[in-house]
Amino acid sequence: MQIAVMGYGIVGSGVVELFEKHKQSIISKSTQNDLMLKYILEIRDFPDSPYYSLFTKDFNKILIDDDIKIVVETMGGLNPAYEYVSACLRAGKHVVSSNKELVATYGYELLKLADENNVNFLFEASVGGGIPIIRPINQCLAANEIDEIAGILNGTTNFILTKMFGENMSFDDALKLAQEKGFAEKDPSADVDGIDSCRKICILASLGFGNHIYPKDIHTEGISSIKLEDIEYAKSWGGTIKLIGKAKILDNGKINIIVSPAFVQNHSQLANADDVFNAILVRGDAIGEVVFYGRGAGKLPTASAVVADIIDCAKHNSGKKSFGWGIPIDNYVENHLNVPVSLYVRAQISDFLSTLAAVEDVIPGVVILKRKDAGSDELAFVTPVEKEGSLREKLNSLPLNLLSVIRVTDY
Amino acid sequence: MQIAVMGYGIVGSGVVELFEKHKQSIISKSTQNDLMLKYILEIRDFPDSPYYSLFTKDFNKILIDDDIKIVVETMGGLNPAYEYVSACLRAGKHVVSSNKELVATYGYELLKLADENNVNFLFEASVGGGIPIIRPINQCLAANEIDEIAGILNGTTNFILTKMFGENMSFDDALKLAQEKGFAEKDPSADVDGIDSCRKICILASLGFGNHIYPKDIHTEGISSIKLEDIEYAKSWGGTIKLIGKAKILDNGKINIIVSPAFVQNHSQLANADDVFNAILVRGDAIGEVVFYGRGAGKLPTASAVVADIIDCAKHNSGKKSFGWGIPIDNYVENHLNVPVSLYVRAQISDFLSTLAAVEDVIPGVVILKRKDAGSDELAFVTPVEKEGSLREKLNSLPLNLLSVIRVTDY
Repeated sequence: MQIAVMGYGIVGSGVVELFEKHKQSIISKSTQNDLMLKYILEIRDFPDSPYYSLFTKDFNKILIDDDIKIVVETMGGLNPAYEYVSACLRAGKHVVSSNKELVATYGYELLKLADENNVNFLFEASVGGGIPIIRPINQCLAANEIDEIAGILNGTTNFILTKMFGENMSFDDALKLAQEKGFAEKDPSADVDGIDSCRKICILASLGFGNHIYPKDIHTEGISSIKLEDIEYAKSWGGTIKLIGKAKILDNGKINIIVSPAFVQNHSQLANADDVFNAILVRGDAIGEVVFYGRGAGKLPTASAVVADIIDCAKHNSGKKSFGWGIPIDNYVENHLNVPVSLYVRAQISDFLSTLAAVEDVIPGVVILKRKDAGSDELAFVTPVEKEGSLREKLNSLPLNLLSVIRVTDY
Repeated sequence: MQIAVMGYGIVGSGVVELFEKHKQSIISKSTQNDLMLKYILEIRDFPDSPYYSLFTKDFNKILIDDDIKIVVETMGGLNPAYEYVSACLRAGKHVVSSNKELVATYGYELLKLADENNVNFLFEASVGGGIPIIRPINQCLAANEIDEIAGILNGTTNFILTKMFGENMSFDDALKLAQEKGFAEKDPSADVDGIDSCRKICILASLGFGNHIYPKDIHTEGISSIKLEDIEYAKSWGGTIKLIGKAKILDNGKINIIVSPAFVQNHSQLANADDVFNAILVRGDAIGEVVFYGRGAGKLPTASAVVADIIDCAKHNSGKKSFGWGIPIDNYVENHLNVPVSLYVRAQISDFLSTLAAVEDVIPGVVILKRKDAGSDELAFVTPVEKEGSLREKLNSLPLNLLSVIRVTDY
């Protein structure tokens, strides 16, 4: 059985490296099949690569080659990935992808296409890098009604927040360090603005709740406005700040899905996922809480997930795995302002005592937070749980110059 | 397709409850098959059960009924579980088991039997309760050479150690509390002596390293001799004490596999798994470290894993899943005394300064630990890494009355 890899960037080259390393020892043994890499599709030249002879710039060579049963898509982006993947599925080839943008945008269409052509479209690597998460949700937790999925889904922002928390680095300095270490891109917006986390929580929610959810329908906030003062308040509250992608089924059947920074309690398994690590919490009716933790990105961890999917395709070459989710539904996502939430608020004020009295009058039950070096023109507190829209209206009615508003989790 | 459940204890009754709850909504939908519970095998009577009519005491009814395609074994123990499971596999029925003793003792034989009869023998519930671990190791990490598996595999002992650590309870008081709460049995030895953890690490190691490993070959220590003084020293060292089952592949190809209490650093994901929770760390060559965390026991979490296996069998009714491990190998397990380790030592001594000098002379590089209220007749330290046998010889040569010797992990 022969395979092709499309895209020889970080992930693609990791896939080739890992595949070749374990071809004999692990892959052939577990699939009882001799898998062979036949093509690498890449527009750039790699004249010094040991796989030089496998490179091609012509997608059609892969498409029309009947020996190619499994195609790996590690190109990223939507074009031409969507076109190529669709064509491969239509041609009866299994496709394995690490491309979260592709899955978040066209997952439903591609899974349907795979189904119609009796092949597999697998994408374990698209969320959580090498952390097993797609397959466990789909198979191991199959006997659960899933209530909630929440996680630290982006390693770059988690590295930045860890540096801010642990070493009092400013956001800007921590971002610069992340760029120097190769954890963040030159244009870091996909990470720091939450776009990457948004795609990933879309994929997890579509899988966990059964219908496709699009990134465009998700309220998404990044971490660039978080200040060290907020971190200090989070510490005094007994926790930390993490960028959380979360999806939860509501009593009305709609999905509360959001990406935003959040206060997380110290004892939470999510609080202890630091640096570039990811952690994903899943709540189900039978299982209670499970957490999956590991390297959410990187060449070999991500390649590990891709190659596991290749092995799975090879094992199930003759038949399709039952796997997928349903058609998008209108109004499936609840407006986040309609969802009850607790908020952390930091504000500039003119008079401490009178403002405090006004706040406690309008929002009874707030918990005031303290920090060293806070001036008398600063007030910070955590509100009780209430519909976010109503809470925000109340906050706007108060004599507060809002500097930070961050959601508070119950884990 | 019809199923039978053998054994209506905590897990078995949970399986029936969860299966009936999700039969329509989840199970039929995902398997595209109408699954029906036909028999419950149980020697006790449950006249008030809503499933009264399904109960039978006659195993042969299940065995000869060709409509029964999947048999769930939640009886526990080896007899008659082994005989019944073997007979079902021979009769061409898939078997799902939650029975760690059975899998640890007869896993190789039963997997072989399943293979010969082209049916599945699945046991996700046997380790980590509802935490997905068997399938992730087998499938999601399939592209890795697994280097090490280590985990908190027993909820009862973890509850006891958490109480000792957090509330300064003695071992005896914490055990009593665990018994009152139903976390520990009247005869707690299978838990506190490490026997349960030993069976589970056997299963994980057999799966991860590829050949069956028997509990009898594993050096196993429990937690009953741990004193609050040891917990205090662990804190001063910067960590905690957990009962760890660990298996690691050595450079000589042998497996270092052991169950014992261990010092675990505070920042470790294992340190933060408290109460009855389990956490399992897997190290692979591509993935680095992944950790799986959740409820390692309990009626519904365990049932969640069993029902997921049932669903998997139903989906793969026609063909066997490629899954299993190889024949046991002589001398596969390395004697733990030949393995390098760092040890925490607490000893009664007669003269502090001269003993300290003797210790530092014989074992250069020890780190002395301090605790409040320690008398001058107490010395505690952590050794550098050295072969355990040689370390123990050195300790025995010193003027130390050894009170505690606990292994120190590097995670």
